[in-house]
Amino acid sequence: MTTDLMQTEKHFLDYVKKMTSFNEAIGLMYWDLRTGAPKKGAEQRSEVIGMMSSEVFDMSVSNEMKRFLDELTKEDVQNNLSDRTRKTVEECRKEYDRNIKIPAEEYSEYVILSSKAETVWEEAKEQSNFEMFRPYLEKLVAFNQKFVEYWGYEENKYDTLLDLFEPGVTVKVIDRVFNQLREHIVPLVQQVVNASDKPKTDFLYSHFPQEKQKAFSLDILKGMGYDFNAGRLDTTVHPFATGLNPGDVRVTTKYDESDFRTAVFGTIHEGGHALYEQNISPQLIGTPLCSGTSMGIHESQSLFWENFVGRNKSFWKKNFDTLKTYSTGQFDDVSLEDYYRAINVAGPSLIRIEADEMTYALHIMVRYEIEKGLINGDIEVKDLPQIWNEKMEEYLGITPDNDAVGVLQDVHWSGGAFGYFPSYALGYIYAAQIKNAMLEDLPNFDELLEEGNMLPIKEWLTENIHQYGKLKQPIEIIKDITGEGLNAKYLIQYLEEKYQQVYRIQS
Amino acid sequence: MTTDLMQTEKHFLDYVKKMTSFNEAIGLMYWDLRTGAPKKGAEQRSEVIGMMSSEVFDMSVSNEMKRFLDELTKEDVQNNLSDRTRKTVEECRKEYDRNIKIPAEEYSEYVILSSKAETVWEEAKEQSNFEMFRPYLEKLVAFNQKFVEYWGYEENKYDTLLDLFEPGVTVKVIDRVFNQLREHIVPLVQQVVNASDKPKTDFLYSHFPQEKQKAFSLDILKGMGYDFNAGRLDTTVHPFATGLNPGDVRVTTKYDESDFRTAVFGTIHEGGHALYEQNISPQLIGTPLCSGTSMGIHESQSLFWENFVGRNKSFWKKNFDTLKTYSTGQFDDVSLEDYYRAINVAGPSLIRIEADEMTYALHIMVRYEIEKGLINGDIEVKDLPQIWNEKMEEYLGITPDNDAVGVLQDVHWSGGAFGYFPSYALGYIYAAQIKNAMLEDLPNFDELLEEGNMLPIKEWLTENIHQYGKLKQPIEIIKDITGEGLNAKYLIQYLEEKYQQVYRIQS
Repeated sequence: MTTDLMQTEKHFLDYVKKMTSFNEAIGLMYWDLRTGAPKKGAEQRSEVIGMMSSEVFDMSVSNEMKRFLDELTKEDVQNNLSDRTRKTVEECRKEYDRNIKIPAEEYSEYVILSSKAETVWEEAKEQSNFEMFRPYLEKLVAFNQKFVEYWGYEENKYDTLLDLFEPGVTVKVIDRVFNQLREHIVPLVQQVVNASDKPKTDFLYSHFPQEKQKAFSLDILKGMGYDFNAGRLDTTVHPFATGLNPGDVRVTTKYDESDFRTAVFGTIHEGGHALYEQNISPQLIGTPLCSGTSMGIHESQSLFWENFVGRNKSFWKKNFDTLKTYSTGQFDDVSLEDYYRAINVAGPSLIRIEADEMTYALHIMVRYEIEKGLINGDIEVKDLPQIWNEKMEEYLGITPDNDAVGVLQDVHWSGGAFGYFPSYALGYIYAAQIKNAMLEDLPNFDELLEEGNMLPIKEWLTENIHQYGKLKQPIEIIKDITGEGLNAKYLIQYLEEKYQQVYRIQS
Repeated sequence: MTTDLMQTEKHFLDYVKKMTSFNEAIGLMYWDLRTGAPKKGAEQRSEVIGMMSSEVFDMSVSNEMKRFLDELTKEDVQNNLSDRTRKTVEECRKEYDRNIKIPAEEYSEYVILSSKAETVWEEAKEQSNFEMFRPYLEKLVAFNQKFVEYWGYEENKYDTLLDLFEPGVTVKVIDRVFNQLREHIVPLVQQVVNASDKPKTDFLYSHFPQEKQKAFSLDILKGMGYDFNAGRLDTTVHPFATGLNPGDVRVTTKYDESDFRTAVFGTIHEGGHALYEQNISPQLIGTPLCSGTSMGIHESQSLFWENFVGRNKSFWKKNFDTLKTYSTGQFDDVSLEDYYRAINVAGPSLIRIEADEMTYALHIMVRYEIEKGLINGDIEVKDLPQIWNEKMEEYLGITPDNDAVGVLQDVHWSGGAFGYFPSYALGYIYAAQIKNAMLEDLPNFDELLEEGNMLPIKEWLTENIHQYGKLKQPIEIIKDITGEGLNAKYLIQYLEEKYQQVYRIQS
């Protein structure tokens, strides 16, 4: 490499490091706002976050960035770059292209619109008044359609939005796997609904003191291999995990004293996200590669731990007695089998964020079908309440009483996030594929859980997924692990076996 | 004002707001590092802080800043600016002049030196080995002497360093008040040493559970008018208060279960700093004026609350019973009078940060005399241990056994902070002047404390001090309140009266 080029590479990496440093500071401010920042400072703090976010945005589309990218993507130059630098250039190029193509005024109009829309949505939801939200949603959809035109698309307009959250996954792929899923889950749900031997659940709702829930959650996080020297657990309203850098990845949870499951499964879920961020190779610090590779792969990690570990009977063979010691007697007369069935109770419900693992993907499909239709102009916003209700009936066999528990329930669209929802279901499908592949290396998976030895599981995930950050694309990760692409078969198998067993259905 | 000028003013204020936003983010990161950030993320977090601090530094000396300052300090322009903008320009000008005059390479050499020096100091202190630290201290002194040459000085070189921390206060002024103080306190200390009726203190050291200390500290903070919607109390190793913006001013404390005074008086002290920052006019947010006007005035607020309120008998008439209910019986057989005497126990001691209010200023004077001599070349670094010990003997009548508890005890010099120490004593002198002036408006000061009604006191301080932030210089503040300049008389009066009474000395 010439000295000039080495200089350019160095300056580029310094420039990028500055952006990631700003992002780390922003991340800490968000965490702080959500875990205990004093109310009266919040408005000013939001301004600071806004200022710093624009700073990062401006840096992503600056002339300086353009010069770096032009220089470092010349063919003869590219071949001389390290993998780390080359992939960093790719990420920055993608970001640059995306951001530069939208006229500044339009983007700022859009930011203002979505901020207003979120406020209106909140009120519309409270009043269950879709008409109030409709004009905003129409504009948000129109903006996104325009963005797709700016960004360009190949087969399907919606592909361009999917790519924001799950690079490489298209409508064609999703249609195939979602259809496959639906064909099996819809009848499974009906079997469960009609099952005569349903789990008893009354004992789940006894008073479980917050401090005891916390102590148990901390035990479980430790058992998962979450490193408390590189993280902490705090309380919040809408739980999340945030990776500021691999040495500082924080988990938050909330506590419901009449339903311990909120905290316990919530903490395991966020702990799964956190393990991903804690175990990214430290060599990626200071680059945009030091982060989970996609929303879907991230969700695969949280769902893997929450469901394939946390709702597994072997896991509770080890942990049920401990849970009992933390509780105030609510499980004294409950057998492990009854407990296991209870925490896996499933069935159609209206609210996505409260849905169980069997029906969850169906909730996502409803949203996916609608988003695809909206962006391609096949569905109009004004028809949404009706379409929503029809799809709910079709997929889950129930119809919302009103739009607050129907089409208005989720915040995503009010912020302009179209293309995000599918990640949740993709994560789930990935998780089942990953679990299946893991069994080849760890055929004693269930015994490990029974022994409370989860480290080999964590290490397998680090080895095959976590360490790479964004060095690998989601589809690459899955292919390298499973030898195939996205495949819903394993999730279907898992759900059918599990729920026929839990609901004692004769197959 | 012309449209052009209005534009310049607007751009200048936006520019400055960006700098204060960065500083707010940096402040939060510091708070986080010291209150519970995971260890493994600390190194990377320090890098982020370093990057953002250079960013702010670069902005303070940029060509853009120079253009703003040149434009906005033209005489005809200045007269058209609001007070807020004009004072902001003044602050930025001062900072610009200071920062631009030091050659970049020298400054960066100095930053590296002081960072190394701090590490070496730590070890030197541990080993009580002054020679180990000496070469670093010599270089740090030489750098500061050079900085003084760059910055210029009028009467005394040390004035230029004092001005960094206490604008407007000079060697001439300090010599006068410190001499006055010394003349009275040195004999007072001897009276106390020779007093036959000393306070009993054994009951202070009983086990006082941390949680109970915290609950009591929270009560006191609330009583002082500290706003918990604009702040919070956390635990740390070296307590501090930090004002991120007036809506977010955080207090930290530490707990010693065998000496409740650490937390209680520490929290009151930091609470005093915090009240200052919480009550700065919100109109100053986004400018460098939104902060305490000097180290000395800041310290006057913390010391006012800690000593003039917290060590006042009337305060304990109200609070002693409450303290008893939080404690586990240690005060059951203790009278209010004995308790009051115990928390005011005083006498010569070696360590500044453990010194009582009677001897504290003497500790500062030792440091002041040394710094003044060093910067003016009248004292050489190699002679410090001897000079230190002689001065301690002269002022306090005791000599350290070794340098760890002598000249090596404080961190300040290792970071290159010369001119900072005097602020502590100035704050104390100010506090006594403020208390005296306050009595004119609140002659019922002691009754207010007895009633537990501290709000009029807080409001008086807000009205006369807090609201102004840096709109007023320290000397202006004191003059507007007291009608005179710095005057040690009131502190002398307070100490003599109080300690002759506490130690039952016949005067």
